[in-house]
Amino acid sequence: MKELIWQQILKVRENAPLVHNITNYVVMNNTANALLACGASPVMAHAYPEMDDMVAIAGALVVNIGTLDEYWVESMETASSQAVRLNKPWVLDPVGAGATPYRNQVIKQLMAHKPSIIRGNASEIISIAGAQTGTTKGVDSVHGSSDAVNVSRQLNKTSGAVVCVSGATDFIISGSRTAALDNGHPMMSRVTGLGCTASALTGAFAAVNPSGLFLACVSAMALLGVAGEFAASKAQGPGTLQLYLLDELYGLKEEDFMRIVKVSERDGE
Amino acid sequence: MKELIWQQILKVRENAPLVHNITNYVVMNNTANALLACGASPVMAHAYPEMDDMVAIAGALVVNIGTLDEYWVESMETASSQAVRLNKPWVLDPVGAGATPYRNQVIKQLMAHKPSIIRGNASEIISIAGAQTGTTKGVDSVHGSSDAVNVSRQLNKTSGAVVCVSGATDFIISGSRTAALDNGHPMMSRVTGLGCTASALTGAFAAVNPSGLFLACVSAMALLGVAGEFAASKAQGPGTLQLYLLDELYGLKEEDFMRIVKVSERDGE
Amino acid sequence: MKELIWQQILKVRENAPLVHNITNYVVMNNTANALLACGASPVMAHAYPEMDDMVAIAGALVVNIGTLDEYWVESMETASSQAVRLNKPWVLDPVGAGATPYRNQVIKQLMAHKPSIIRGNASEIISIAGAQTGTTKGVDSVHGSSDAVNVSRQLNKTSGAVVCVSGATDFIISGSRTAALDNGHPMMSRVTGLGCTASALTGAFAAVNPSGLFLACVSAMALLGVAGEFAASKAQGPGTLQLYLLDELYGLKEEDFMRIVKVSERDGE
Repeated sequence: MKELIWQQILKVRENAPLVHNITNYVVMNNTANALLACGASPVMAHAYPEMDDMVAIAGALVVNIGTLDEYWVESMETASSQAVRLNKPWVLDPVGAGATPYRNQVIKQLMAHKPSIIRGNASEIISIAGAQTGTTKGVDSVHGSSDAVNVSRQLNKTSGAVVCVSGATDFIISGSRTAALDNGHPMMSRVTGLGCTASALTGAFAAVNPSGLFLACVSAMALLGVAGEFAASKAQGPGTLQLYLLDELYGLKEEDFMRIVKVSERDGE
Repeated sequence: MKELIWQQILKVRENAPLVHNITNYVVMNNTANALLACGASPVMAHAYPEMDDMVAIAGALVVNIGTLDEYWVESMETASSQAVRLNKPWVLDPVGAGATPYRNQVIKQLMAHKPSIIRGNASEIISIAGAQTGTTKGVDSVHGSSDAVNVSRQLNKTSGAVVCVSGATDFIISGSRTAALDNGHPMMSRVTGLGCTASALTGAFAAVNPSGLFLACVSAMALLGVAGEFAASKAQGPGTLQLYLLDELYGLKEEDFMRIVKVSERDGE
Repeated sequence: MKELIWQQILKVRENAPLVHNITNYVVMNNTANALLACGASPVMAHAYPEMDDMVAIAGALVVNIGTLDEYWVESMETASSQAVRLNKPWVLDPVGAGATPYRNQVIKQLMAHKPSIIRGNASEIISIAGAQTGTTKGVDSVHGSSDAVNVSRQLNKTSGAVVCVSGATDFIISGSRTAALDNGHPMMSRVTGLGCTASALTGAFAAVNPSGLFLACVSAMALLGVAGEFAASKAQGPGTLQLYLLDELYGLKEEDFMRIVKVSERDGE
C-alpha cells in the first residue's frame, strides 16, 4: 500500500488541485501553507455570491466549523450542496463537536448534505455518532482514537462517508476496509490546527482521486504523519515544529517516506 | 514571589484550563499556539447561539477588540455578561483604545460588564482612563509603561479590575499591590500580537487561580517576558523570534526561569 | 535608482507610517508582521463605524479582496472613498480576479474609487483589464508576468493607477516609465500571501512618499524580492522561508541590498 500512497503524493504535486476551503480563522494561514507545500492550490472563500462558482472550479471542498457563525454556516450549506450536485468530494471537519448544542445542530445540518469524508479526533467522532441519537459529549479529545473505531464504523455505515479518526494512531474506515497509521509525534497536539491541516490535505488528495476516497484519506494522513514525525525530530518545540512541518510537506523524498511510514490495512470487520 | 509564580506555571501545565477567546483575526493563530504551548487549551468562538454555552465550559474568557465589528461586539457583551453571571474571570484587551471614537465607545460598553483584568500598553491604558472622562488619545503606544502607573492605579480603583500595563517594564496593579517585571526584549515589539498573547496567557493563569488574579496576571506576564527574552537571544529577527517564543513557552525549565526572571513587588501606594 | 530605493527603505524605518489594511483572513498575521519588520505600523480594521476615522489617521490604505464578503466589500468602498477624499494613497490587491463573477463585480466597484496603485499577479492583472470589457479568466496565475506588461500599460492608462504585476520578474508601470525587478525565488510561490505582503509593503512605502508612487511601488517590490532571495537561500522549505523573510525585512543591511538588487528602468514605450 505504501507505493500506492506515494503515487497519490506525486499526483497532488503534479496536478496542483484547487481546494476550496471554508475553514476557521485560527488555521487559515497554516492550512493554506500546508496545501501549497504539498503541491496543491488553496482557495479560501465564503461569500454567498460566489459559493456555487467557487465550488464549480475547485477539485474538492473542505468544510471546517471551528469558528462558525450564522453567515458561515449558510456558506457551508450552500457550498456542500453544490459539491454534491456537481459530484465533487467534500470533507467535513466537525471541530469541537459536542462542545455546545449549537455545534451539534450545525453538524446535523451539514451531515444532511452527505459529506464524502468526515475527519475528526476521537471525541468529535464519538460526539457526532452520539448526536445522531441525541446525546452530546465534552469538548476536549478525552478519548484515544482506538476508542472511536467501532463508532466510526457505525458512522461510516449510517452516513456513507469515509471516516477518519485521528490520534496517536489514525484510523480510516470505509465499508469493510480499515487502515491504521502509526506516524506522527505527541508534540503535534501542542500545535493548533494540525487536525484542520489533516482535513485540508485530505481535500487535496480527494481532488486528485475522487473515485478512491479511502486511499485519498489514507494518503493524506500518511503524508502528514510522516512529515510531522520528521519535523518533530528536528524541532525544539511546537513553534519550530509548525514551520518544519511545512518544509517537510514540501520537500519529502520517496526513500524517506518509505522508510518511515507505518501503515497497515485490515480487510473485513 | 518567584516560587509562587513558578507554581502557577506548573498549575497551568497540569490543569490544561480551557480558555475561551473572542479575539482578533490577526493573532488568533499565535494566541492559540501560545496557549497550547504553555499547557492550556484554547477555544476561539464568537457565534451568538453558543456564547453562553462556551463560557460555561471555559475556565476563563479573554476579550480582545483588535478587529472588532458590530457582530463581534455583541458576542463580547454576551460572553462577558455570562462570565460575570457564572463568576468566571474575564480579561479585557482594549486593542487600539483611543484610535477611533468607535473603539472608545465599545470599550465603555465592555467596561460596564466589569472585567476582572484589563491588560494593555501604556497608550491604551491611558486612553481608557481618559475615555471615562470623555477624552481620547492617539493609536500608537507613544507612552512608556511607567507613564501609565498612576493612571493604572486610578483605573484599578474605579473599575475594580486588576490592571496590567505592559512595556519595557510591565506593571501589575491591584489595590495596594504593585508588581514590576523587567524581562522581555525590544525586538518583541516588532512581532504582531505579543500583547494579545499576554492577554491570552493571563486568561489561562486566571482560570487556574480565579481567587488570586493579581498573582495570575504577574505569572502570565513573567512567563511571557522570560520566554521572550530567551527567544530573542536565539532569534535572528522578529520572524524566528515568534516561533522560538512558542518553543520556550512549551519547554521552559524551572532553573532557567528562576535565573532570569526579574520581578519586584511594592506594597502600599 | 538603487540609492533612491534604499533611501525609501530608510524612510519607512524612520517614519514608521501607519498603514490601514482591509485584507484577507489568511494573511493578516503575516502582513502585519511584514509591516512591523520593515519598520511600519499596521492597523487591521473593517468596522463601518470606524472606517472614516481609521483612514484619517493612517498614511495609506491597502485593500485586499482575498476573503471578501458583502460586509467587507462595503468597508472597502467606504474606506477607499475616504482615502480619495483625504488625498491618501490606496493600494488595491485584486486577489483571485477572474475566479468568479462576484470578484469581478467587486473589483469593478472598487476600481470606480480610483486606486492609486494596483498590484496583482499576471492572471489577476490580465483579468482586471479584461473584466473592464466584460470577459473573465481563470483563477491561477497561469500567465507569466511578462505576458501582462502590455495589458498593464493599458490598465495604467485607463485607470490612472500605478500598476504592478508581480512574478518571476516584477514590472511596475506608470505613464511612460517601466521598471523591472529580477529578485526573489521560485519557492516564494509556495508560501501563501507573499503577494498580499507585497501589497501591504507597497502601502507603507506609498505612505512615506505619497507624491512618488512609482518609486514607492518599485521600492516595496525591491525590498520584498531581495529579502525573499536571502530568506530562500537560508530556508529548508516554504515554512522556514516565511519566517526568515520577516527576519530579513527587519535586519536587511544597505551593502547586502545593494549587492543583490536587480532593477532596471526603461523610459518611454
